[in-house]
Amino acid sequence: MTVRVGVIGTGMIGQDHIRRLTDVVTGAAVTAVTDLDPARAADVAARAGATAFPTGADLIASPDVDAVLVTSWGPTHAEHVLNAVAAGKPVFCEKPLATTAEDCLRIVDAERAHGRRLVQVGFMRRFDPGYRQMKDVLASGDLGAPLLVHCAHRNPAVPESYTSAMAAQDTAVHEIDVLRWLLDDEFVSAQVLTPRATSRRFEHLKDPQVMLFETANGVRIDLEVFVNCQYGYDIQCEAVAEAGLVRLPDPAAVGVRSAGRHGTAVLQDWKGRFTEAFDTEFREWIAAVASGAEPTGPSAWDGYAATVITDAAVRSLESDGTVVAVDMKPRPAFYGGTA
Amino acid sequence: MTVRVGVIGTGMIGQDHIRRLTDVVTGAAVTAVTDLDPARAADVAARAGATAFPTGADLIASPDVDAVLVTSWGPTHAEHVLNAVAAGKPVFCEKPLATTAEDCLRIVDAERAHGRRLVQVGFMRRFDPGYRQMKDVLASGDLGAPLLVHCAHRNPAVPESYTSAMAAQDTAVHEIDVLRWLLDDEFVSAQVLTPRATSRRFEHLKDPQVMLFETANGVRIDLEVFVNCQYGYDIQCEAVAEAGLVRLPDPAAVGVRSAGRHGTAVLQDWKGRFTEAFDTEFREWIAAVASGAEPTGPSAWDGYAATVITDAAVRSLESDGTVVAVDMKPRPAFYGGTA
Amino acid sequence: MTVRVGVIGTGMIGQDHIRRLTDVVTGAAVTAVTDLDPARAADVAARAGATAFPTGADLIASPDVDAVLVTSWGPTHAEHVLNAVAAGKPVFCEKPLATTAEDCLRIVDAERAHGRRLVQVGFMRRFDPGYRQMKDVLASGDLGAPLLVHCAHRNPAVPESYTSAMAAQDTAVHEIDVLRWLLDDEFVSAQVLTPRATSRRFEHLKDPQVMLFETANGVRIDLEVFVNCQYGYDIQCEAVAEAGLVRLPDPAAVGVRSAGRHGTAVLQDWKGRFTEAFDTEFREWIAAVASGAEPTGPSAWDGYAATVITDAAVRSLESDGTVVAVDMKPRPAFYGGTA
Amino acid sequence: MTVRVGVIGTGMIGQDHIRRLTDVVTGAAVTAVTDLDPARAADVAARAGATAFPTGADLIASPDVDAVLVTSWGPTHAEHVLNAVAAGKPVFCEKPLATTAEDCLRIVDAERAHGRRLVQVGFMRRFDPGYRQMKDVLASGDLGAPLLVHCAHRNPAVPESYTSAMAAQDTAVHEIDVLRWLLDDEFVSAQVLTPRATSRRFEHLKDPQVMLFETANGVRIDLEVFVNCQYGYDIQCEAVAEAGLVRLPDPAAVGVRSAGRHGTAVLQDWKGRFTEAFDTEFREWIAAVASGAEPTGPSAWDGYAATVITDAAVRSLESDGTVVAVDMKPRPAFYGGTA
Repeated sequence: MTVRVGVIGTGMIGQDHIRRLTDVVTGAAVTAVTDLDPARAADVAARAGATAFPTGADLIASPDVDAVLVTSWGPTHAEHVLNAVAAGKPVFCEKPLATTAEDCLRIVDAERAHGRRLVQVGFMRRFDPGYRQMKDVLASGDLGAPLLVHCAHRNPAVPESYTSAMAAQDTAVHEIDVLRWLLDDEFVSAQVLTPRATSRRFEHLKDPQVMLFETANGVRIDLEVFVNCQYGYDIQCEAVAEAGLVRLPDPAAVGVRSAGRHGTAVLQDWKGRFTEAFDTEFREWIAAVASGAEPTGPSAWDGYAATVITDAAVRSLESDGTVVAVDMKPRPAFYGGTA
Repeated sequence: MTVRVGVIGTGMIGQDHIRRLTDVVTGAAVTAVTDLDPARAADVAARAGATAFPTGADLIASPDVDAVLVTSWGPTHAEHVLNAVAAGKPVFCEKPLATTAEDCLRIVDAERAHGRRLVQVGFMRRFDPGYRQMKDVLASGDLGAPLLVHCAHRNPAVPESYTSAMAAQDTAVHEIDVLRWLLDDEFVSAQVLTPRATSRRFEHLKDPQVMLFETANGVRIDLEVFVNCQYGYDIQCEAVAEAGLVRLPDPAAVGVRSAGRHGTAVLQDWKGRFTEAFDTEFREWIAAVASGAEPTGPSAWDGYAATVITDAAVRSLESDGTVVAVDMKPRPAFYGGTA
Repeated sequence: MTVRVGVIGTGMIGQDHIRRLTDVVTGAAVTAVTDLDPARAADVAARAGATAFPTGADLIASPDVDAVLVTSWGPTHAEHVLNAVAAGKPVFCEKPLATTAEDCLRIVDAERAHGRRLVQVGFMRRFDPGYRQMKDVLASGDLGAPLLVHCAHRNPAVPESYTSAMAAQDTAVHEIDVLRWLLDDEFVSAQVLTPRATSRRFEHLKDPQVMLFETANGVRIDLEVFVNCQYGYDIQCEAVAEAGLVRLPDPAAVGVRSAGRHGTAVLQDWKGRFTEAFDTEFREWIAAVASGAEPTGPSAWDGYAATVITDAAVRSLESDGTVVAVDMKPRPAFYGGTA
Repeated sequence: MTVRVGVIGTGMIGQDHIRRLTDVVTGAAVTAVTDLDPARAADVAARAGATAFPTGADLIASPDVDAVLVTSWGPTHAEHVLNAVAAGKPVFCEKPLATTAEDCLRIVDAERAHGRRLVQVGFMRRFDPGYRQMKDVLASGDLGAPLLVHCAHRNPAVPESYTSAMAAQDTAVHEIDVLRWLLDDEFVSAQVLTPRATSRRFEHLKDPQVMLFETANGVRIDLEVFVNCQYGYDIQCEAVAEAGLVRLPDPAAVGVRSAGRHGTAVLQDWKGRFTEAFDTEFREWIAAVASGAEPTGPSAWDGYAATVITDAAVRSLESDGTVVAVDMKPRPAFYGGTA
């Protein structure tokens, strides 16, 4: 059975996912698209052999759509996801699930009312082979309990529209999700420190930032976010446990010795870093949808948690680095919790 | 358009490629299979939703087969490839193209007579990202002309049926092909040295072996083949040029510090090492077939060259390490040569 | 000219430095020793061909002593250093210079009154080739201004007598000194966070700890101190600047591939890690003394600063991780400051 | 007791060793020097506080000389070493021990006649910590018997006076000695292959060269010698044994990430690579001399072996890569052999 996917939002990420569902992942076909810009939707539809729909609601209602992919502008996510849940259709929503904790909870409540999981949120790092190896090592118990995590998330540069709050909302949110999963633990506080800012980029921007998180189990996380580091796209993660540590590898790259140096290239672009993660993410999602199983990727609850935690980080940033408690509801049994 | 592939030979490798064409590569469908063992063919056909054919010739003749994949026992390859060429159908043949240089030349001649390329040989390393990066670096010219290549090809262990000649025929053949491509050069001599053999494996086996090759441009290649190295599957390649060197990376793997050591796991299996290469190999082949283009992967001529060079290596092995000239026909213009 | 050194305190470190001054560093001779335990002093003196003195004051007063090395119990350091300064003799004092900021200031004042530098404090990391390379890279300006430093200081295990405050006083103090020097900057605040403690060691101990420092220039430093990490002695330091980063190397060690792993040994002991630094430290100190020059290593002011900063860290630890300002006097011109 | 060393030959290497014996190694004093150029000898003597002697024979005969260091022009080594042995004085001779096998044997015979070891040859790599770690790993037996060794010896550039034969005599001779020691094995054949020569250096020079050696135990060694590799001074060595391999580390150096690359500097000079080896070599030699013990470093026999093996390599080079047997006398019991 081919899963017929309707795509809401045909911007850069939407188009990349359409390519992925068409050329990379088997068992899927993009049959429907929609976009705020009808011309763009029509154009993409023509190239993909899909039908352009006037609105997300129309697309979701179409009998030619088995599953929905939401890649539209963030503030519109909640509405589309809620519509998909109301229609009982599996929905994959790029992060964020919603831009407010309240909207995330509305989705959580709707999904619980529906009675089985329909929603997956697009945190792709859980599908990266390096993070998966890290999780295997930690889960084996050989190293004992995790105590600390050191991370860095560096981009070569960001556009001027990037704000200081986006360091948490758009950038750190990936570490927030993947560390909750890696540690199988929940964040309880957030703190954002602002070192001297780089002089080589926009004055309005607090860059780099150091984010500190504490988990329910007492693990301390420090995360450097530096989005104008100039030298490349570089993701580092090291988890320190009672009897040892495990560290995310750099991407494999040929070593070159020349002109007095031994070195490897550093990636310049996040797309190259997580290609395999994106492919696996969609392969597993399509397989789950095709088999009628619930998705196993990040849930609506994970989307809610990420939003609450990034909210706490932003509040800390805006209050000079105060420690801000993460104000999260108790996790319902539906999502593996005890509430 | 979906490329309908008929698979000749449904053993382990055949089944793995069927899985790949079905679950990993888009745009392909396995519609026909055959095997010396009709029960196995029927079983695989049932699981794949394909038709089982009594013989390779029947399968090739079927109008439901657009392209042929030969994964049968080596000595049968030539016949199937010749049949496919005669039928004018694209054919992907796992290595070796044929077990004798004569049979390889028959295929070459048939393909030339046909007038356009139909044959691709299954040397997957050309599709490995590490080798491709190496080729990019060498081709850029930044390092000047290549002068030397140091390689190692190590397996943890081989079964008792593995013979000393298979070190060239089954193992070194991968380096032979990928280095011809990497260097864009031809091999002119082969020599095989036999160090002290490991005591930890079969007495009949000369293992490890050191293979030395010279190319037309004077590049010297040394290749360690050690198929019972015990510790893992490990592929090393370093090309030294006039102004620097470039080295194949180890696969990315998490680093662990524990119990007094800092380390990473070494793969135990070649399948894990070249998964991405196999996927890309078939993705590009299917894309070429679908578009009606000639295949861009290893050609019948490359298959012929590999067989002639491995023959030279085996003769050197059997004559106490004498240098043996590679007795290759001039390369026809059809395959990019001058003959 | 041979520098005749008198050693106050002949415990483990004292004896190691006597060995160093005798067997490793040229131009020095240990001519005098003293210890609280006269029998030990006599024994060490006999083996070193030195004279045992009843007290530090006697030793300092001896005309056979050109320079003084203080390796006694920390609380006695101040008295010996003050005596040496009063006698106008160069004095090398193992860390800490004194156990209280007040005593450090008394030494600073005495040295200033004397009018030229006599005191060097035993922070050996400034002499480690890795840290020196880091300083060269940062000082070159190629990477722009430093913004962040990430450090880890891990020991395999500590004895039961080790207290939570010693994580700052005995362990982090090395990073505190070397980072002040590396960054050419002053610390202005300290904060100590206490993650979940390892279960594999003493209940009384808060281990690991995460220490956060801010400098006058706004550089943010995070330092993991984990003194029962089990796997080895491991020192990590990475400085992130505006255009790139520089990282301390691991000690060179042979790589071994065996039993499915590729790895290197991790040192188990700090002595092996900083052997070259200790040797260079004493070689440079003896050379300075021999030539009549002022010492160029860590000054009395550096010893004072380290004590004030560790005091701030301990206060933070004892007040649940509050940010504690570093209450340091203005740096006198005598020590390169403006006061 | 201070060992009084007389130095024959005060060129660059002689002066560097004088510095080492004066400033780095304790327990030694350079009391006498001589040189073909009396003015240079006088100048060096004045700076070192030593006496200049007219000839090596005079110097050796001086009662102020306890031990002799020969750092003169290679063809004069044999005479000085023989004189020292005749005088019963310990003598450290920079490589080569002598420029002909016959002269080496004369020294061997003289030393045997003397009855105890007096001669040490200056192969410093045996004192390098990396090679010593390799030897420890191999000697532990954990990896089983060694089967193969892969080496590279690369210099950024050589002067025009460097000849093709010097690749064996001056360059590969270091690997020849250190591998005999590392493997505790003897070389039985040598073969030198000449790849395409680099176009970026002198036309007269065959560079790079690939040297192949076989040992009595059947270990096969391949050694790339590339003395105009341009990018740096780079020494590689990997020993492959039955159950794993061990590899010489690169020198520790800070890692830098900037401008799209992650890299470390490659040394440009052999002096920086083996500083610690040279220091340890002399420290151990002086300690042995001071204690009246026989030296434990490379013996006259090792010097003889190195000359015989380099002779074989040169003959192979001059006969188009023929395999040349190493024509070595049986090793006398005096040197740990059975003859």
